[in-house]
Amino acid sequence: MERHLDLELTDLKQQLLKMGTFVETAISESIEALKELNIEMVNNVISEDKIIDEMENAIDERCLDLLALRQPMAIDLRFITMSMKISTDLERIADLAVDIAQRVQDLAGKPLLKPLIDIPKLTNLAQQMTKDALDAFVNKDATLAENVILRDNEADKLRNLVQKELVDDYMSKDLLTVSRAVPLLLIARHLERICDHATNIAEDVIYMVKADVVKHHPEKLK
Amino acid sequence: MERHLDLELTDLKQQLLKMGTFVETAISESIEALKELNIEMVNNVISEDKIIDEMENAIDERCLDLLALRQPMAIDLRFITMSMKISTDLERIADLAVDIAQRVQDLAGKPLLKPLIDIPKLTNLAQQMTKDALDAFVNKDATLAENVILRDNEADKLRNLVQKELVDDYMSKDLLTVSRAVPLLLIARHLERICDHATNIAEDVIYMVKADVVKHHPEKLK
Repeated sequence: MERHLDLELTDLKQQLLKMGTFVETAISESIEALKELNIEMVNNVISEDKIIDEMENAIDERCLDLLALRQPMAIDLRFITMSMKISTDLERIADLAVDIAQRVQDLAGKPLLKPLIDIPKLTNLAQQMTKDALDAFVNKDATLAENVILRDNEADKLRNLVQKELVDDYMSKDLLTVSRAVPLLLIARHLERICDHATNIAEDVIYMVKADVVKHHPEKLK
Repeated sequence: MERHLDLELTDLKQQLLKMGTFVETAISESIEALKELNIEMVNNVISEDKIIDEMENAIDERCLDLLALRQPMAIDLRFITMSMKISTDLERIADLAVDIAQRVQDLAGKPLLKPLIDIPKLTNLAQQMTKDALDAFVNKDATLAENVILRDNEADKLRNLVQKELVDDYMSKDLLTVSRAVPLLLIARHLERICDHATNIAEDVIYMVKADVVKHHPEKLK
């Protein structure tokens, strides 16, 4: 049974990684849609969200089966329960990509407020943090997870920069920019939330690996 | 052992309800802080968030112990794993109350943009949905949970109304309102997210009770 469980856990990892790939694509596509104000791409993001929802359900089902049938202990038990939390985080990240796509709908037909300031930088950070957090999970790599947590401050800073620039340099100076600036402001906020979810995943990884609650105790990171 | 597990589950419920009470208070206090631009109350919300974080950790620990030591089956297994997901949702709701409190900090010293439009209404909805979702969980009440899910549309509508009014009636008409309107716009967004988390909890309840995946399948609700 021991070996059987190992195979099943490898399968669960593959399922999570596949879900992760879909989620990363959703982030890229939502921002590509923004750059090109491309409504077809917006619709793609929205329709692919359903597939990601199904993936979350499938992962939860599999985890419950493993808990019931294999009655795993120690690190395996934590890996399975954390998989259920992480599938939720991934699904919420996909929802945020949909939120971004919907803001692009609000912008359609209006000339884009150039430049997009630091939004592309914040997007790269959000994608990289998501990817690294998930890699850290499947590889039980606490060092990579700690690195994700440390980058969360950068995300907050970038979001503040975007917001400050939109408010001070555009909205407060020119009334005509408001309806185009508000969606960008919300998009920056959505991207920062994605980074928060990646951070949550990373905290779960450290908890799983170290069986220690780093979550809510950032001072435990050196 | 059967009876022992029942007692332990009753205890777990109490822990979740206590966490719920703290979270509801955080929402109220953050909006009271907004109404009165009261920085002392802002600080309260921020410092109490640490207690809520600890509560999440304690609930997760207890759930892992129950899974490892009692190896529960069927509805008990689902109740325990769902408790871990729900503690995360409650903790995120508390984080959103902190986000609201931080927006109040941004507003401090500036005259409040009157009226607060539908923000108080959206706040009541967010609190009621959170309370009902948690009650539905501990009482395994699928009907109440379905009712929470149906109210999520109302939350989206209210948020759109607030945003539309802020953009069209204030920001687009008077440059001087922008820096006071942006935090309100974000607060409406935070409140809507609280409703989303309550909806997630409600979906987990239905899943637990009916052992059926209503999550991501709203058409299953009649």
